[in-house]
Amino acid sequence: MSTSSDCKVVFTEEQEALVVQSWNIMKKNSADLGLKFFLKIFEIAPSAQKMFSFLKESNVPLQHNSKLKSHAMAVFMMTCESAVQLRKAGKVTVRETTLKKLGAVHLKFGVVDEHFEVTKFALLDTIKEAVGEIWSEEMKSAWGEAYDQLVASIKAEMKPSSY
Amino acid sequence: MSTSSDCKVVFTEEQEALVVQSWNIMKKNSADLGLKFFLKIFEIAPSAQKMFSFLKESNVPLQHNSKLKSHAMAVFMMTCESAVQLRKAGKVTVRETTLKKLGAVHLKFGVVDEHFEVTKFALLDTIKEAVGEIWSEEMKSAWGEAYDQLVASIKAEMKPSSY
Repeated sequence: MSTSSDCKVVFTEEQEALVVQSWNIMKKNSADLGLKFFLKIFEIAPSAQKMFSFLKESNVPLQHNSKLKSHAMAVFMMTCESAVQLRKAGKVTVRETTLKKLGAVHLKFGVVDEHFEVTKFALLDTIKEAVGEIWSEEMKSAWGEAYDQLVASIKAEMKPSSY
Repeated sequence: MSTSSDCKVVFTEEQEALVVQSWNIMKKNSADLGLKFFLKIFEIAPSAQKMFSFLKESNVPLQHNSKLKSHAMAVFMMTCESAVQLRKAGKVTVRETTLKKLGAVHLKFGVVDEHFEVTKFALLDTIKEAVGEIWSEEMKSAWGEAYDQLVASIKAEMKPSSY
């Protein structure tokens, strides 16, 4: 059961509709938005850069770092698609990896609550800017809920060893 | 020498002028701006609330918590006045306390780089909103530099014991 969340998923039809509506606007721009998302994380918390080995090895400005671009796009798509699929799947699902692997890598790099929180703020701010006038408190809350469930699923796998 | 920074202070006349100009606009609203500043910190990093004992004891919404209001105003004024005085004093100075006490309390509550970073982001965003049209990259940089020097001085006193 390593790729599914143990928490009971509560995500309403209205929340799903808001997430789907905004994702339909954003997905064609996943590369740009993913990069914006990560640049915002690093603007708020510059020290988070040290968690990414491909940034340590490079002197290229962040916004031109091709490894950051592709990583950021993948994370952004994974996060958004997890939200889009949350209600139908009835659980948190991630593409191209498993929650077990995500748990292990977040544990390895010392990710703590504060990092997940800054990332949530940056994600919501990125979506807000991307969707423009259709942004609302309800949409913010829907994305926030989906993100919280993704994080809860990752944290559930952030254990030094399995019992 | 516990209340002064050991770092050589580099803060230009231009930076001082930008900080003074914006502080003159803000200081009469220190209560409101201080609260905005802290609400922004908690919006970005909700878990930071657990560092404040007066928040744990209370069920009042954050924006109506009188202890938070007075604490936030004091921190905001201390931070801004430290910036305003930086050039003339030639070192980081803080009102109503000492850097040694600030170092001890930040150490006690487990403040790490990420907290100082989120606080910097929230401070700059609060000032940006407060000063309106006169905001500029140079003003951002002046406040950022003054904040960094304050943090460096606090961190210099964040030692479990003195040697």
